[in-house]
Amino acid sequence: MNGAESLVKTLLASGVDTVFANPGTSEMHFVAALDTHPEMNCVLCLFEGGVTGAADVYFRMKRDVSATLLHLGPGFANGFANLHNARKAGSGVVNVVGEHATHHLAYESPLKGNLDGVAGAVSHWVRRSPDAETVATDGAAAIRAARSLNGQIATLVLPADTAWNPATGPVTATAPGALYRPADDRIEAAATRLCQPGAVLMVGGAALIGEAFQTAARIAAATGARLIVDTLIPRRSHGAGSPAAVQLPYAVAPKIETLKDATSITLLGSNRPVTFFAYPGKPSLPEPAGCEIAELASPEMDILWTLDALANATGARSAKAAVNQTDLPDLPTGRPTSDKLGQALSALLPEGAIFLNEAVSNGRNFPEMLSRARPIDLVGGTGGSIGWSLPGAVGAATACPDRKVVVVTGDGSAMYTGQSLWTMARQGLDVTVIVLANRGYQILRDELKNVGVDTYGANAQAMFDVDTPRLDWVAMAKGHGLPGTRAEDMETLVKALRDGIEGDGPSLIELALD
Amino acid sequence: MNGAESLVKTLLASGVDTVFANPGTSEMHFVAALDTHPEMNCVLCLFEGGVTGAADVYFRMKRDVSATLLHLGPGFANGFANLHNARKAGSGVVNVVGEHATHHLAYESPLKGNLDGVAGAVSHWVRRSPDAETVATDGAAAIRAARSLNGQIATLVLPADTAWNPATGPVTATAPGALYRPADDRIEAAATRLCQPGAVLMVGGAALIGEAFQTAARIAAATGARLIVDTLIPRRSHGAGSPAAVQLPYAVAPKIETLKDATSITLLGSNRPVTFFAYPGKPSLPEPAGCEIAELASPEMDILWTLDALANATGARSAKAAVNQTDLPDLPTGRPTSDKLGQALSALLPEGAIFLNEAVSNGRNFPEMLSRARPIDLVGGTGGSIGWSLPGAVGAATACPDRKVVVVTGDGSAMYTGQSLWTMARQGLDVTVIVLANRGYQILRDELKNVGVDTYGANAQAMFDVDTPRLDWVAMAKGHGLPGTRAEDMETLVKALRDGIEGDGPSLIELALD
Repeated sequence: MNGAESLVKTLLASGVDTVFANPGTSEMHFVAALDTHPEMNCVLCLFEGGVTGAADVYFRMKRDVSATLLHLGPGFANGFANLHNARKAGSGVVNVVGEHATHHLAYESPLKGNLDGVAGAVSHWVRRSPDAETVATDGAAAIRAARSLNGQIATLVLPADTAWNPATGPVTATAPGALYRPADDRIEAAATRLCQPGAVLMVGGAALIGEAFQTAARIAAATGARLIVDTLIPRRSHGAGSPAAVQLPYAVAPKIETLKDATSITLLGSNRPVTFFAYPGKPSLPEPAGCEIAELASPEMDILWTLDALANATGARSAKAAVNQTDLPDLPTGRPTSDKLGQALSALLPEGAIFLNEAVSNGRNFPEMLSRARPIDLVGGTGGSIGWSLPGAVGAATACPDRKVVVVTGDGSAMYTGQSLWTMARQGLDVTVIVLANRGYQILRDELKNVGVDTYGANAQAMFDVDTPRLDWVAMAKGHGLPGTRAEDMETLVKALRDGIEGDGPSLIELALD
Repeated sequence: MNGAESLVKTLLASGVDTVFANPGTSEMHFVAALDTHPEMNCVLCLFEGGVTGAADVYFRMKRDVSATLLHLGPGFANGFANLHNARKAGSGVVNVVGEHATHHLAYESPLKGNLDGVAGAVSHWVRRSPDAETVATDGAAAIRAARSLNGQIATLVLPADTAWNPATGPVTATAPGALYRPADDRIEAAATRLCQPGAVLMVGGAALIGEAFQTAARIAAATGARLIVDTLIPRRSHGAGSPAAVQLPYAVAPKIETLKDATSITLLGSNRPVTFFAYPGKPSLPEPAGCEIAELASPEMDILWTLDALANATGARSAKAAVNQTDLPDLPTGRPTSDKLGQALSALLPEGAIFLNEAVSNGRNFPEMLSRARPIDLVGGTGGSIGWSLPGAVGAATACPDRKVVVVTGDGSAMYTGQSLWTMARQGLDVTVIVLANRGYQILRDELKNVGVDTYGANAQAMFDVDTPRLDWVAMAKGHGLPGTRAEDMETLVKALRDGIEGDGPSLIELALD
């Protein structure tokens, strides 16, 4: 057994059976080792941003880690942006990064670079295996680190000689350490605080999913606190039957408005609210003066235990949670708008669908509209770096092959990691992609106004518009091996979305917003 | 004037009139400032790898810097791989990276990350402006740093408040400091060494271009030394009339073979030769035992002065350089092969063309074949990170709008930064793109053999082949707004290549290698 084999066996022995990969030459022994272990599901992505974005959303849906296979510093860097998003989502990812053989690093070869520097800038945990004998232990430590504190970015750097030299193993990763829990007096204090007028309970992470989310809603009902979730959250149970929680808006003014009566914000698995960007003369913090910010459990703490303890302390076990009711809209017709797309999604998404929303500017109303749809999982952006949703759809469909995946992305975002379309086709993933073609970076058009510039000329227009030439998304789909439909009216969109939902392979719909 | 305006004026005052951009919200004031300066050429790229790859090759052709406009840590990271390539090419680049306003960094907002960490991992020079008043001075320092030591990666981080607050300026960048020169006795020693049997003169950087390359060839002729250039070089004058220099092969065995009689290697603007990767039981260093490695001038030193001094010391001024002779091949016909593509290029590339070669495995013979073509510039990979050539073609055509740009890329590489096709169409750049569709990562198929694995199964095949489904490059071109042609025989390729050369806008040809 060589080091690479000992790592593959360690991954499998530790329950990691999926690897999203874009390997290079320095990972050849790892590829050879994967080859002798067909029980490992290897998913090829044609760009590293696809690899890491898939691993992020795989974790969000599976609640467990996958591995990535990346190639030296530049390969890791290509996956950096979606690791940033994964880090903000609280997703656990095990990155395996091939590196030059230890003795080769003495020389200025083309691919030599500061791999540790770039890896360390986004990973919670980085280790470089010193020799083949250590690879299995290091691999198990990486898996444990990725599973720790509710999910971390763990990066294992494997010099090629540690992969090809003789090794022993495998090692099974031990369970992560116990999560921190708030002391009893903090639970009691929170229970008291939530009963005061103007109290807000802001939940995140595992508290947004399934029964835990219901518990949060029961606490809100029992105490009279408002239940709020952050603007950007990795995943929430949504649609009919899910808690009627307010999601904080993106823009500064409505965010401030939403919190204007808050006297306290109790954080349970969420960071404190903050504006996305800073603007001249506007605050970074949206809560009113004097509002207490009370961190009961940070995102890294034991969220489920804290929820249960708080439910007991507030007598919420028997409370009735306020939940969303089904109210399916009519199917939209005529000229496309983004709200009509939200209407079509609300009407057509089947129960159990996974819906990824990267419509950015045009998708802000979707969460509210979808609250009355059938029960779904809503997956959203977390780190503000665009190009996460097409890779994410690959990860969601790989994690949950029996569920329907629907993703809406703006055209600007889709251009970042369109290579994922090919992986959907290659793997036959059950994903329906909708590209909202608004021919530009709408968010930038809006944001220029937000910083006080109302009119703009040729150079700004050149940087905001993606219009000359127009991107042809049906051709783009064909290029990647996917069937595509261009919808210039909502009737065509509805038909293509129905076909996508009823079919079981990938397809793409371009919705022309002009 | 605000900080952003002071920076734009500083760039223009310092002779930097081109910015490759993918801005985000934090760069809005910079965009507004560009808008009031139409003399700045703003080129939008739909992914940051396109931005940095364009800036890299812009420098190689223009011999001066452009600016990039990037968006926080993830945006910088998306451009990291091609900055790695630029660094290995010795290209100067001025990165302007928008960052959160200083006071906003106190909070855990979605895009907050370790920008300094990722920037520092690939930049020679990083600075974070503390306030708007300092932006002009810092900008001038960044330009100077990017122009120093023959070209460096300089990264200026601009918190949004430094862009929007009042500032003075502009500042004109001072000239970079004088380059280091070798002492006279080292010139003399080199002159003596080069006359010994088995002497090799290995040149790089500016010594590969135009008259300097001729001087290098004259030194070789006068001393009897062999003139050699490295495997990966940013740019060389090539074709008829250019020096008949040997380019070191990629593979280890022929690299060792090429150097087997070397008794000394005198380095002038080049790093020492080293194998690309390490392999079990193979050396990293290709020169024979006892061969002296003598660094006369490192890539950061005064290469042109050293060349002249060495020419004087060797009496090479009147020597006759061995140069390539024109020998245009017949036009190829029939079933496509990569060598036939080299033949077509050799026959058809016009004088003064800029040829970018990212065919990776299939393009290894192109430099040798093109040595007998008309005079061209040959631009190649430098850092081993794929996806540089389509962005590079944007940079080359922007730097040299009057010259024909032809780029050959493998399909695996083209999938990395295909967004550059759109920029070619948007800017109407005179680029002919040839995608060599070999349906996979041929280099990985080869490299698996190099590490001793001769047969492979389903998981390895899944990671090497890009075949199910096939990428359709004509559709991909259409998607990005470019005309495309699929060539299944060389007659079609020749016609489409001729059309591309005779036309003056961008086009794409898919050459099907199967």
